[in-house]
Amino acid sequence: MTETFTPSPLFQRVERARRRKPNVRDTHVTLAHGSGGKAMHELIEGVFLEYLGNPILDRLEDHAVLEFSRAGGATDRDAPVRLAYATDSYVVTPIFFPGGDIGRLAVNGTVNDLAVSGARPLYLSAGFILEEGFPLEDLRRVLASMRDAAAEAGVQVVTGDTKVVQRGGADKLFINTSGVGVIESPVRLSASGARVGDKVILSGTLGDHGTTIMIARGELELETEIESDTAPLGSLVRDMLDEASRVASLDAVHCLRDPTRGGVATTLNEIALASEVCIEIREDRIPVREEVRGACEILGLEPLYVANEGKLVAIVSAGVADALVARMRQNAYGRDARVIGEVTAEPRGIVALRTGFGGTRIVDMLVGEQLPRIC
Amino acid sequence: MTETFTPSPLFQRVERARRRKPNVRDTHVTLAHGSGGKAMHELIEGVFLEYLGNPILDRLEDHAVLEFSRAGGATDRDAPVRLAYATDSYVVTPIFFPGGDIGRLAVNGTVNDLAVSGARPLYLSAGFILEEGFPLEDLRRVLASMRDAAAEAGVQVVTGDTKVVQRGGADKLFINTSGVGVIESPVRLSASGARVGDKVILSGTLGDHGTTIMIARGELELETEIESDTAPLGSLVRDMLDEASRVASLDAVHCLRDPTRGGVATTLNEIALASEVCIEIREDRIPVREEVRGACEILGLEPLYVANEGKLVAIVSAGVADALVARMRQNAYGRDARVIGEVTAEPRGIVALRTGFGGTRIVDMLVGEQLPRIC
Repeated sequence: MTETFTPSPLFQRVERARRRKPNVRDTHVTLAHGSGGKAMHELIEGVFLEYLGNPILDRLEDHAVLEFSRAGGATDRDAPVRLAYATDSYVVTPIFFPGGDIGRLAVNGTVNDLAVSGARPLYLSAGFILEEGFPLEDLRRVLASMRDAAAEAGVQVVTGDTKVVQRGGADKLFINTSGVGVIESPVRLSASGARVGDKVILSGTLGDHGTTIMIARGELELETEIESDTAPLGSLVRDMLDEASRVASLDAVHCLRDPTRGGVATTLNEIALASEVCIEIREDRIPVREEVRGACEILGLEPLYVANEGKLVAIVSAGVADALVARMRQNAYGRDARVIGEVTAEPRGIVALRTGFGGTRIVDMLVGEQLPRIC
Repeated sequence: MTETFTPSPLFQRVERARRRKPNVRDTHVTLAHGSGGKAMHELIEGVFLEYLGNPILDRLEDHAVLEFSRAGGATDRDAPVRLAYATDSYVVTPIFFPGGDIGRLAVNGTVNDLAVSGARPLYLSAGFILEEGFPLEDLRRVLASMRDAAAEAGVQVVTGDTKVVQRGGADKLFINTSGVGVIESPVRLSASGARVGDKVILSGTLGDHGTTIMIARGELELETEIESDTAPLGSLVRDMLDEASRVASLDAVHCLRDPTRGGVATTLNEIALASEVCIEIREDRIPVREEVRGACEILGLEPLYVANEGKLVAIVSAGVADALVARMRQNAYGRDARVIGEVTAEPRGIVALRTGFGGTRIVDMLVGEQLPRIC
């Protein structure tokens, strides 16, 4: 990664003020609005924020950071308790798939939204929407899976809710989890934290979860060994923060994200936009399992856009990148960690992929919807 | 309320060890499992707790209480920050109804689960599950309503999530909210806090919300002025705690609950069971609007079992009851507050209703499902 990416005139034109409030022209909800990609960002920024916006929500991180002084209230007093708070609903279909199920996903997904804030995930809420006629045996299987995932992640489900809708009013089972974690160290991780010169680390292979779901739907007549990568990332994050403290400082870790819906491409675009930098990645550094690559080719998918449920993207100071990668590889969920790119100054707000053939192309956010109900 | 209720032999037999883990014999989810009543309690205690149980969840309150020491972590150290944490999913149909909509309900419902812990509600998460094809105009209307409800309740939506399912995979719009509030005063409110001699206070009329929804569905050809009572109860709770401190002590307030699904009957049963006491209420003290009473008669509903969304049941020391009622009546959401009954020793775990004719009958938890998707 010693080469520098020189923006072409094409890229210069592309560099535009994309943080304007988008003008949502749709009149009805489309599947693309749930994609994690461009349409969803437009819906969130152009509709949700118009009504619900406030300084915390406006940050558009995957979590909120809440501060509580000991006397109660939410103030900035000396040494407040800092908590991370996040929520996700899970509507994946099928609800059981190789490597996991909706229950394991519902625990890990929210745990990971907390973990990438630097928090230690501690408590979950769980809201179940059940379709009349759903087999209790399947519910038990999902709950057993949540129990195991919670134990693995070190969290407890402490409050919950159950609703039932009539047959046909919902598809089997939807789960919402929210989570609370405590931010014990003085980290300040943010999508706007990327700095020119930083390295981009990816914790492992791309596309395993999304491809697994597509195959599990039987849309491909494929016999593969592919499994969802759904996993809790709290321990991996703690290892990284510990290593950064050891070799330099916590401040060397600028941004952590778990690239779920919309894939790594969308996540990196969010960071490039929020930080007003260019993120340059190299195709030959991006790990994709051979079976996943094959399945994606048949499905017409690009692994960069496929959802992951146990992967981490980190933007870190160049000086600590190698030490962090080495430490991550000692963690079960970071064995394939590597530097996949770096942060450059121009063109701002752009993700550029240097291909195997030496060319460079812009990698935009996911447009449209390729994988509905992937999580 | 000077008469004492003498348990008959019938009641003695009824008084049984109901806190045993229930044996769930159903093989599939039924609408009754979402009723808020007996089947839901059996599902929660017999299935959910088997897998997800832990000391906090096992309390089966509408909220969890989390304690954080300032150094981070969750310990019992001196003067920790105490937070209330709750979640609810909203699947009400129709989504717009007289007096509110699913958005207002989703804010107030979770705000109230927090408020009855004695917490000041502060932050909400919001997870939206949208059906493909849902009109964005309706979404905007719901969001505007959430904005207004949040402002009224003094809370902010700080983190969120949006999922879209294909047409027919969900019915229009489901919303999950979770909430975090801070418990600033040393209250210890719990369903197990009722003591013999306590008074039972109800904050206002029963059945407005549930009846409104049934009429809004067009199941009755009825022209009425009935509106949902959906309202945030945080200020009412603060007034009550303030008054209790003023005239006696915070400890005089033993339990607060908002009687939603399953109605006041189910809520009082939960308290009677958890506190191992009898709760005796008087029919002639229970306020029900004339139109609601009429609609309930036509619908074959008992107001005691109909869902409320802006009402409070309080179990308080007899000495403070009148002062609390007087103070509640000064609050817009407590104008019809009154004492409706008292706590007696026997038969334990039972709610008894003294009828207008001088008879007494057992009021059990809601059995079956009378009002699916009421919230």
